[in-house]
Amino acid sequence: MSENISVLGLGLMGAALADSLLAAGHRVTVWNRTADKAAPLVAKGATRGVTPAEAVEAASLVIVCVLDYPATKDILRDASLDGRVVANLTTGRPAEAREMASWVAERGAEYLDGGIMAVPQMIATPGALILYSGSEQAYDRYEQAFAPMARPRYVGAEPGMAALLDLAMLTGMYGQIAGFLEAAALVTSAKYPLKDFTAELLVPWLNAMAAQQPVWAEKIESGDHRTEVSNLEVNRAGMENLARAFAEQGVGLDLLLPMKTIIDRRVARGLAHEGLSGLIEEL
Amino acid sequence: MSENISVLGLGLMGAALADSLLAAGHRVTVWNRTADKAAPLVAKGATRGVTPAEAVEAASLVIVCVLDYPATKDILRDASLDGRVVANLTTGRPAEAREMASWVAERGAEYLDGGIMAVPQMIATPGALILYSGSEQAYDRYEQAFAPMARPRYVGAEPGMAALLDLAMLTGMYGQIAGFLEAAALVTSAKYPLKDFTAELLVPWLNAMAAQQPVWAEKIESGDHRTEVSNLEVNRAGMENLARAFAEQGVGLDLLLPMKTIIDRRVARGLAHEGLSGLIEEL
Ligand SMILES: NC(=O)c1ccc[n+]([C@@H]2O[C@H](COP(=O)([O-])OP(=O)(O)OC[C@H]3O[C@@H](n4cnc5c(N)ncnc54)[C@H](OP(=O)(O)O)[C@@H]3O)[C@@H](O)[C@H]2O)c1
Ligand SMILES: NC(=O)c1ccc[n+]([C@@H]2O[C@H](COP(=O)([O-])OP(=O)(O)OC[C@H]3O[C@@H](n4cnc5c(N)ncnc54)[C@H](OP(=O)(O)O)[C@@H]3O)[C@@H](O)[C@H]2O)c1
Repeated sequence: MSENISVLGLGLMGAALADSLLAAGHRVTVWNRTADKAAPLVAKGATRGVTPAEAVEAASLVIVCVLDYPATKDILRDASLDGRVVANLTTGRPAEAREMASWVAERGAEYLDGGIMAVPQMIATPGALILYSGSEQAYDRYEQAFAPMARPRYVGAEPGMAALLDLAMLTGMYGQIAGFLEAAALVTSAKYPLKDFTAELLVPWLNAMAAQQPVWAEKIESGDHRTEVSNLEVNRAGMENLARAFAEQGVGLDLLLPMKTIIDRRVARGLAHEGLSGLIEEL
Repeated sequence: MSENISVLGLGLMGAALADSLLAAGHRVTVWNRTADKAAPLVAKGATRGVTPAEAVEAASLVIVCVLDYPATKDILRDASLDGRVVANLTTGRPAEAREMASWVAERGAEYLDGGIMAVPQMIATPGALILYSGSEQAYDRYEQAFAPMARPRYVGAEPGMAALLDLAMLTGMYGQIAGFLEAAALVTSAKYPLKDFTAELLVPWLNAMAAQQPVWAEKIESGDHRTEVSNLEVNRAGMENLARAFAEQGVGLDLLLPMKTIIDRRVARGLAHEGLSGLIEEL
């Protein structure tokens, strides 16, 4: 079904979103602070809104994707939101999303907050995912309309949930990157070809090891951290060995030191028999 | 081709290794300090060596898998190694492996050092990998014999290389686990079902993000850290946001603080335009 959709914010991400909606046959109205960024989309059939209020007026679904939440409010302040659905795909914190949900509700609109798990180049490709939280009714109404941008997934009525899970995924990624950087520094110190190590050894290994995470998630949910695979005493010895090897190779292990510290702390508490999942109690 | 192979050390790992060699039709002689651990293998056709020296005497390929390198030396000290190949699959540091290679060479044997990338349950399954470094001639001679234990991979003549790459893979894994634990703590604080988050969102995301690592490896090898995807200024702002969200949810971000610190440091050096690969210069 073809919908009337406005897209406010045509930076790299907003432009990619608008483009995918146009390609899917929706009637798209666009607005951007720097007006000339709208031109390529207008050339493809989008309507130009001269002001944000005019763009909002043209649609029942208003998608916003700008720098941050203060910019989102600046844009929507003078628009008539009443009876519309606002889907804010701007990145922010859970607390900001919750506050924005109230602000939008006061103006008579339903609110969805979104977390885009993709770079602009990935929009409209199978790997892209957008998390949505907030009004379930609004999500059900527009799930099909969202689909051309990226696979949509509803994660609950709490408006901050999409932002929180988005941040949690980034958190996991930063840990993975920290591990990569330390591994790369060690391998480089020994002059082993880093590209070969990474593509042929490290990445398949990490993909195999990630399969353990759902098992740990269950242990965390149940609070039962017993393990038959690798207890904290084994990991403590392994970390000790790692630290010594890094020192012998003249490479700093800074990025993993807090991990070593909490393993030591947990063993010192007499929990050497537990598995790695129990470390969450130290955070 | 059926070979005469000795396996010294029948802990969880050594026993699994010996079992896979027997199943592949090799003539296997076994020894373990605590003798009764040999019984199940003898029942399957292994020959028992009463002393390590007797077990070594029976074979041209001597596989050792015990607690650590000092134990390895204790076991081999009184054996006649001359003309044999010693493959030490005990976990250790690169420096220990290099020292062991000289020690074994002095006794007239060829040396291979191995890093087992598997738990005992994975031995003889397609996911298991053993890295070997040291004598290439010895590796070529026994590559086929090694194969039933786990996919063998030769990583160079420098005897410490297998141990170093083994440790580098563990390093990558510890970073990935640190990221998982922090992500899990954030998700748990919001009472979102952790198992669902992990299996359906985090793991596929991490597997997709790992695909970026070979690209970074190339940048590190070339020393050219320019990026079109996500520069350090974007990551600095992202980390700032992450830290604030963790604080607002009452969750500690300890495991990722050094990552935040080196991003900040690198931006302060005026390198905000570089990508994440440049962070390796700070380690
Ligand atoms: N790029 C990615 O990989 C990616 C991935 C996931 C999520 N996101 C999120 O998507 C959002 C947009 O990112 P982007 O990549 O499109 O960034 P971008 O290319 O830098 O575009 C920023 C957009 O925000 C607008 N803007 C900034 N301040 C404004 C203000 N005060 N009033 C009105 N408009 C304002 C800009 O308008 P002008 O054109 O007038 O400057 C532009 O349209 C961000 O929240 C970002 O975190 C991006
Ligand atoms: N298990 C794993 O997941 C795994 C994975 C990769 C690598 N590895 C490595 O494999 C090696 C063995 O591990 P494992 O899991 O088999 O451990 P394990 O079940 O604890 O067995 C340890 C083995 O070492 C022997 N040993 C210890 N000290 C000795 C000494 N002074 N003299 C003679 N023998 C001694 C033990 O003999 P007794 O039976 O007499 O005590 C036993 O055979 C270690 O280096 C480990 O790091 C293990």
